[in-house]
Amino acid sequence: MAPLKLYGMVGSTNTLRVAVALNELGLDYEFVSVPLTTGAHKKPEYLAINPFGHLPSLEDGDLKLFESRAINKYLANHYKGSGPDLLRSGVKAESAKVEVWLEIESQEFNPPASSIVYNVLIKRLLSGGSPDEDVVKAQEVKLSHVLDIYEKQLAETKYLAGDEFTLADLNHLPYLYGLSKTANAGLLTSRPHVSAWWESISARPSWKKAIAGNPY
Amino acid sequence: MAPLKLYGMVGSTNTLRVAVALNELGLDYEFVSVPLTTGAHKKPEYLAINPFGHLPSLEDGDLKLFESRAINKYLANHYKGSGPDLLRSGVKAESAKVEVWLEIESQEFNPPASSIVYNVLIKRLLSGGSPDEDVVKAQEVKLSHVLDIYEKQLAETKYLAGDEFTLADLNHLPYLYGLSKTANAGLLTSRPHVSAWWESISARPSWKKAIAGNPY
Repeated sequence: MAPLKLYGMVGSTNTLRVAVALNELGLDYEFVSVPLTTGAHKKPEYLAINPFGHLPSLEDGDLKLFESRAINKYLANHYKGSGPDLLRSGVKAESAKVEVWLEIESQEFNPPASSIVYNVLIKRLLSGGSPDEDVVKAQEVKLSHVLDIYEKQLAETKYLAGDEFTLADLNHLPYLYGLSKTANAGLLTSRPHVSAWWESISARPSWKKAIAGNPY
Repeated sequence: MAPLKLYGMVGSTNTLRVAVALNELGLDYEFVSVPLTTGAHKKPEYLAINPFGHLPSLEDGDLKLFESRAINKYLANHYKGSGPDLLRSGVKAESAKVEVWLEIESQEFNPPASSIVYNVLIKRLLSGGSPDEDVVKAQEVKLSHVLDIYEKQLAETKYLAGDEFTLADLNHLPYLYGLSKTANAGLLTSRPHVSAWWESISARPSWKKAIAGNPY
């Protein structure tokens, strides 16, 4: 069997999202570097895998997949025998809650969290740029409101979708990590249940392995 | 069995996304109106169903679900016996492609399409407001690039994820419809394969039923 190939970049948050899923499922893979800084993502050979030219992509034999959350869904569905059942697929109410919290990550958490992390952390690493302070302030207000709802949920259940770790928790790791490395870390540490959740999920060996050698 | 209850608003794009999925699967439901214009979505009884106060939500017995894309995933998974298999769940490569195109809708198509439709259509309906022209122009450029990639895909396959209609196509309907009702309809009609795809999926009885009585 040809090994799985992950196309991405060291330090790319969306690449880390797939790397931690691969690790959680105990899957070996070959990492293929596509450095944004050299424009490698706009070259024809990469566009043949992912026409949007975004990172990451995954090759599994003949299958070429992209969008980190779609790749993780695929891995969790098709390799669930290799690790924990990250979608709680056998249990109707639980699997429905996993779908809800996967979408909350994508639609409610990700827009403000990624905007803050991009502005205060990634922009400087990629180009030495400085943050747009007005954008950061507006997104902090949005993220605060979102995390207040997380705090209530995490007072009731250990993880977002229930008492088991799922893909809904895992998909949050890259931007929680980014936030924890900025002056905005207080958004997490000021909320006891959010803070305990972040400490717990970031202590997983799958995440420690994913960020070994990360530049921030 | 208690009937499914869809909480939403007439004219809400995200409510339409769930209505067309319910119709496609041949599921009866009760519609419960939550008018944003009266602030009904911020009242405690609605926040008990959806703490984010967004539309729509779905109740299925004791299950309270929200985020339109998560609700549709749940419906497609748990009621697949009622209609077509919208996730192509039995076929590994096809189901993976469905996941990819579901995420493309959410991450690539939806941000520019919803921004344009909100600015040029919904804002006026909700509050008589006028569009932010700079935002509309910037989002048109982004959406054009995205639809160029759709055009290539739809030259190869009848639907986005292959030759069968799936949830990935269905989830696009509300904002394609919104675009078709604006001066930006040319973004669709100027691309022959995108245009034929939109004509085909919007002719489905499930969509005709969903928009009966829609105010735009």
